[in-house]
Amino acid sequence: MTGFEHLDPQAPIGVFDSGVGGLTVVREIIRQIPNERLLYFGDTARVPYGTKSKETVLRYTRQIIRFLESQKVKAIVVACNTVSAVALEEIEKEVDVPIIGVVRPGVRAAAAATRNGRIGVIATKATIESNIYANYLKQIDPKLEVLGKACPLFVPLVENGLLEDPVTDEIAGRYLAELIDRDIDTLVLGCTHYPLIRSTIQRIVGEQVTLVNPAYETAIELKDLLDKYGIRKTTEPHLGGDMHRFYVSDDARGFEVFANSVLKYGILSAREVNIENY
Amino acid sequence: MTGFEHLDPQAPIGVFDSGVGGLTVVREIIRQIPNERLLYFGDTARVPYGTKSKETVLRYTRQIIRFLESQKVKAIVVACNTVSAVALEEIEKEVDVPIIGVVRPGVRAAAAATRNGRIGVIATKATIESNIYANYLKQIDPKLEVLGKACPLFVPLVENGLLEDPVTDEIAGRYLAELIDRDIDTLVLGCTHYPLIRSTIQRIVGEQVTLVNPAYETAIELKDLLDKYGIRKTTEPHLGGDMHRFYVSDDARGFEVFANSVLKYGILSAREVNIENY
Repeated sequence: MTGFEHLDPQAPIGVFDSGVGGLTVVREIIRQIPNERLLYFGDTARVPYGTKSKETVLRYTRQIIRFLESQKVKAIVVACNTVSAVALEEIEKEVDVPIIGVVRPGVRAAAAATRNGRIGVIATKATIESNIYANYLKQIDPKLEVLGKACPLFVPLVENGLLEDPVTDEIAGRYLAELIDRDIDTLVLGCTHYPLIRSTIQRIVGEQVTLVNPAYETAIELKDLLDKYGIRKTTEPHLGGDMHRFYVSDDARGFEVFANSVLKYGILSAREVNIENY
Repeated sequence: MTGFEHLDPQAPIGVFDSGVGGLTVVREIIRQIPNERLLYFGDTARVPYGTKSKETVLRYTRQIIRFLESQKVKAIVVACNTVSAVALEEIEKEVDVPIIGVVRPGVRAAAAATRNGRIGVIATKATIESNIYANYLKQIDPKLEVLGKACPLFVPLVENGLLEDPVTDEIAGRYLAELIDRDIDTLVLGCTHYPLIRSTIQRIVGEQVTLVNPAYETAIELKDLLDKYGIRKTTEPHLGGDMHRFYVSDDARGFEVFANSVLKYGILSAREVNIENY
């Protein structure tokens, strides 16, 4: 008895993000459980969420959840740190399918990785101000020291393609200086865009700091969750452009270009949805 | 007979933008016609518009116009280049009060300023792709050469306070290099954020290039428009925090901080509106 026996194991898994960043989570899910079908929604019309208030993020999230439920998904992955940080605790009570975010998996991995107990978290302004990483980490071990730092320019730099660039090095150096000074040994990449500049971040903080990518941890927990509820897809994957479906609230063509740079295979098309109607 | 005799000259002027950038237009209007009352709306929940499709910008603009009409404004200023570029031609047919954007005033000023006929335009991706500055300039003089350049990182740099910063210098140098190479003598600041880094831009393009700030030109044309229709406010201004009203779709506190850095007087408060309900 899990309460989820009625769900169809062959149904897709809904994955959503404020925009394109959640594709780094999609990439990890495809690596870990390649036979599952994914249905992705990116709120490209209203991106970014990281600068918005909790009330606005909650309202937008409820619209997206209604859209995903209309598509009969069997589970939902909140592939956005901001939504996971400010809205998931309220939203998970309202949803009739298993739902996971990226924060708790990242927290567990960070707590397991640290040796000196000093953990840095870099994320959007909304995620840092929510204090959620610090709160969850201290639930695991109250002696952990958690240093959060908002890095608001990382998303525009990544979205404008400055992945390997002296400007990104300079900005990263400024953001990370105080974390380095405080001698962290573990750093959580608390925004789904940040794994795309992982090598820059690693170079600046040094090899002795363990980078935690919550996208990777989330894909592992998703697999465990599907097993627990007995809703793993049992049929073989049919690899091809139509296996996964991609929806956005604006600019499907721009999304496809970015998606093809993040994912290893071409997606044939993304469709636009007027999310305000949900 | 102008068709606008029914409008109340004492009513406020509606001014709107995708976010905070339109405050540079507010600043110029207050300088030019200080006794007029302004009612500002900034779509801070859905900013930026410059990366969105025409359809989405049109849908959002219609919601804002409905909100401003519900507030009984006597005229509307589209203090956003992206909306002026991609939506104004369609919207102006649907509105029952005088409406002006920032593009045509900027175009007229640029055409008047150039000596060698080579005009640069820097703006968002949506504005540049609309080709509107080039189209309007060539209506005035088909021999004008117009060189457009999208500068997508300027808005996040300004919004993160990097107004005088080596990173902004570096990014501006990259964006402006080809305009300098093409020997422009006039440069339109085609996004309302850009006047806030005017001195950086002037230093990079050199003193021989005339910078055109459409916000300044728009305030002059607004004054002429109100005179033409006989709807200039006749009562004296009551200077104080409640003379102008400010509405946003999200994060009123953050808006107030930015507004106080742009405007010369403190605004007492901004109110939040759920713009999706309009």
